[in-house]
Amino acid sequence: MRHLLTLKDLSPLEIEEILATGRELKERYRRGIREPLYPGYVMGMIFEKQSLRTRVSFEAGMTHLGGSAIFLAEEVGFGKREPICDFARVLGEMVDLVMIRAKHHEDVVEFAHWSPIPVINGLTDFCHPCQALADIFTMRELLGDTQGRKLAWVGDANNVALSLAFICGKLGIEMSLAVPKEYQFSDETLQLIAENQPGWKLRVTQDPVEAVTGADVVYTDVWVSMGQEEEKAKREKAFAPYQVNAALMAHCPQAYFMHCLPARRGLEVTDEVMQGKQSVIVQEAGNRMHAQKGAIVWLLRQR
Amino acid sequence: MRHLLTLKDLSPLEIEEILATGRELKERYRRGIREPLYPGYVMGMIFEKQSLRTRVSFEAGMTHLGGSAIFLAEEVGFGKREPICDFARVLGEMVDLVMIRAKHHEDVVEFAHWSPIPVINGLTDFCHPCQALADIFTMRELLGDTQGRKLAWVGDANNVALSLAFICGKLGIEMSLAVPKEYQFSDETLQLIAENQPGWKLRVTQDPVEAVTGADVVYTDVWVSMGQEEEKAKREKAFAPYQVNAALMAHCPQAYFMHCLPARRGLEVTDEVMQGKQSVIVQEAGNRMHAQKGAIVWLLRQR
Amino acid sequence: MRHLLTLKDLSPLEIEEILATGRELKERYRRGIREPLYPGYVMGMIFEKQSLRTRVSFEAGMTHLGGSAIFLAEEVGFGKREPICDFARVLGEMVDLVMIRAKHHEDVVEFAHWSPIPVINGLTDFCHPCQALADIFTMRELLGDTQGRKLAWVGDANNVALSLAFICGKLGIEMSLAVPKEYQFSDETLQLIAENQPGWKLRVTQDPVEAVTGADVVYTDVWVSMGQEEEKAKREKAFAPYQVNAALMAHCPQAYFMHCLPARRGLEVTDEVMQGKQSVIVQEAGNRMHAQKGAIVWLLRQR
Repeated sequence: MRHLLTLKDLSPLEIEEILATGRELKERYRRGIREPLYPGYVMGMIFEKQSLRTRVSFEAGMTHLGGSAIFLAEEVGFGKREPICDFARVLGEMVDLVMIRAKHHEDVVEFAHWSPIPVINGLTDFCHPCQALADIFTMRELLGDTQGRKLAWVGDANNVALSLAFICGKLGIEMSLAVPKEYQFSDETLQLIAENQPGWKLRVTQDPVEAVTGADVVYTDVWVSMGQEEEKAKREKAFAPYQVNAALMAHCPQAYFMHCLPARRGLEVTDEVMQGKQSVIVQEAGNRMHAQKGAIVWLLRQR
Repeated sequence: MRHLLTLKDLSPLEIEEILATGRELKERYRRGIREPLYPGYVMGMIFEKQSLRTRVSFEAGMTHLGGSAIFLAEEVGFGKREPICDFARVLGEMVDLVMIRAKHHEDVVEFAHWSPIPVINGLTDFCHPCQALADIFTMRELLGDTQGRKLAWVGDANNVALSLAFICGKLGIEMSLAVPKEYQFSDETLQLIAENQPGWKLRVTQDPVEAVTGADVVYTDVWVSMGQEEEKAKREKAFAPYQVNAALMAHCPQAYFMHCLPARRGLEVTDEVMQGKQSVIVQEAGNRMHAQKGAIVWLLRQR
Repeated sequence: MRHLLTLKDLSPLEIEEILATGRELKERYRRGIREPLYPGYVMGMIFEKQSLRTRVSFEAGMTHLGGSAIFLAEEVGFGKREPICDFARVLGEMVDLVMIRAKHHEDVVEFAHWSPIPVINGLTDFCHPCQALADIFTMRELLGDTQGRKLAWVGDANNVALSLAFICGKLGIEMSLAVPKEYQFSDETLQLIAENQPGWKLRVTQDPVEAVTGADVVYTDVWVSMGQEEEKAKREKAFAPYQVNAALMAHCPQAYFMHCLPARRGLEVTDEVMQGKQSVIVQEAGNRMHAQKGAIVWLLRQR
């Protein structure tokens, strides 16, 4: 049995299997075919944080496959009402796989330790593997082969950036990262990235123009993530020079613009870029569902 | 592609198609047949306000059709966490149609503007088309042909009353409205109603007895809608003479009593009338589900 | 039509039918077979109190059967937004059966009075029939025939204990109850238990060692149930001698340990016992789902 906790744990071949399965399911979906591959199968979804895309994409995906998903929010008391070892083992008796959006990555790791069924990380403070899978899925649709292509991340070195670093490393996609010095990945995290794929190197800079020059994709995310609201003013000041706007995008007219959403227009990205012709944010968001269906089917096949 | 935002947008023929489809599905349902006409199809349901009937009727309806519905409440941050244009386009990638219960009708109109999939208005401050469809559906079951029949509305000139005015106009059903002067429809709204169906006239009065005399259906709704709690005392005083009680119903012994529920017994209607033999409130509520299934199938066929 | 409000209402034969149906469904489930016995069928689930096991077990169970379950929490205003007679009759038009977790047992009884569809008690202040069904289901798996076997309850004489007393009486299972004097069942409740099955006798004691000696199952539950938080300190003092720990379990080395969960390790049971080799808590929790599927199918067959 396998879990999907971080892309660091998957081999390049396994990532390709997930992407290929997702691609095939999307193709069939587009042609009006929603085969109940897993009739009566149930996914438990635990949310410690707000969600729109993650919840709808998993819940719709399970319906397409002939099953259902159970939305478990605050009221189930994840990690509070009872120990994670009880929660994980009990849920494992009732459903077929579990998706968790948690505040603390270590809670998801502990859950997976006890779980008799596959666990999917639906966002933690450490990483966001489902988003990165959807992003590469989208790059493939737009660019064909991604080998040697270049993704430029501009903004905060957060959990999404880390998952992108892992998957770009595994798949031979170049990645540059323009982040203010004080918000750069820690040395420990940079070490993790380096170990992830020997020979591949993340290009770190503080210059957004340098990062986006020659890029195929420019990517940003909010400067203030859920849970960092108290640092808002300080962060907005530090990140201001890293806004993705028309001036920056003019340095890479061939590039697509991506954002994992929700976006704060006027902060990390301008309205003009979000609505502009380089923007592929809607296609990218829709691919959350298709890539995750690939992951679900892949995990259920590994049991 | 079509939406169901207000009955004013539908032709009489289109309304008849929805009602006929709902009638056929109810007939089959009663005989134990729940054909999965749309297997794996998913409806997103956005609720900015409380709901029982609307939620259960749509969710059960989608299950009957072989699909599912996703209940999105406060936590998705409709209109707050991100612009409606992003919300609508992203949801449109993941589900097949959307139902919205919103505080502001203009938010639903804006959502529909951006939405690549059909949008159903599940109640706004402006109107409540699904309720009015269920009401006429119920009148047809009780009375057969409704042409020239008479519906008397007694109480507040609210969103349900407006949708009934639109549908009665389209289908040639007479409608009288007994409302305190200061709570009557605005001139602008009365103008809208007049434009809806030339030749048809809403009969406005302040006399409940005049309104119900000769009526086939007497209809009322709460005096204090969700969001008007601060006007409670003032409203209850103004509407007191408009209570639907046994004395009023004695003026129309042949009439059925309807209410869109939840009701405040002892205020707009007495317990005696609610439980009395003229009351058809339970059948009416159940028809929310059947009429809406008609609307869902009709919308999915128009794509 | 039948309801499942308390096990007192069921005959031994009816209980055996439910258990046998659940057993057959579990057997097929284990072999990978999830037949859609009730395609498109819908269960309404009303929760006035928190839940994990109850909610997931019913929702997953309905999905296995080809249908779905609708999670109705606070926002539907059970017993507040409108009278129970309206709530029950309306829901009865839209779904096929209803599960209610309520603060007050009499609300569920009233709901069932008005309901045109089967009602399942998913926990009230009075009893918890679904838990007791799952517990006996589990004893049968572990012990084979349960006739003359012995269950020892140690701790609070609560709603779960009462349902176990009813089912043990019906099925000829001996039951001893070690409870502090001031928390014992009232005389009225003891009278109810005595009337339940003439000839069968609940053995009441204040000595945990006496209760567990010779037991096949030792069972405990939290000392402070939902709604009793203000009595916490007082209760924890009174119940301290009733903790299920290794010393107590040493008096019945052959016995299995059960708990309906969530457990407060260090209070009513030690971590050592919960994780120990006598513990069958995970199997027991999983059987909530299987026993309840038996109940659902049994109820739908009685219509």
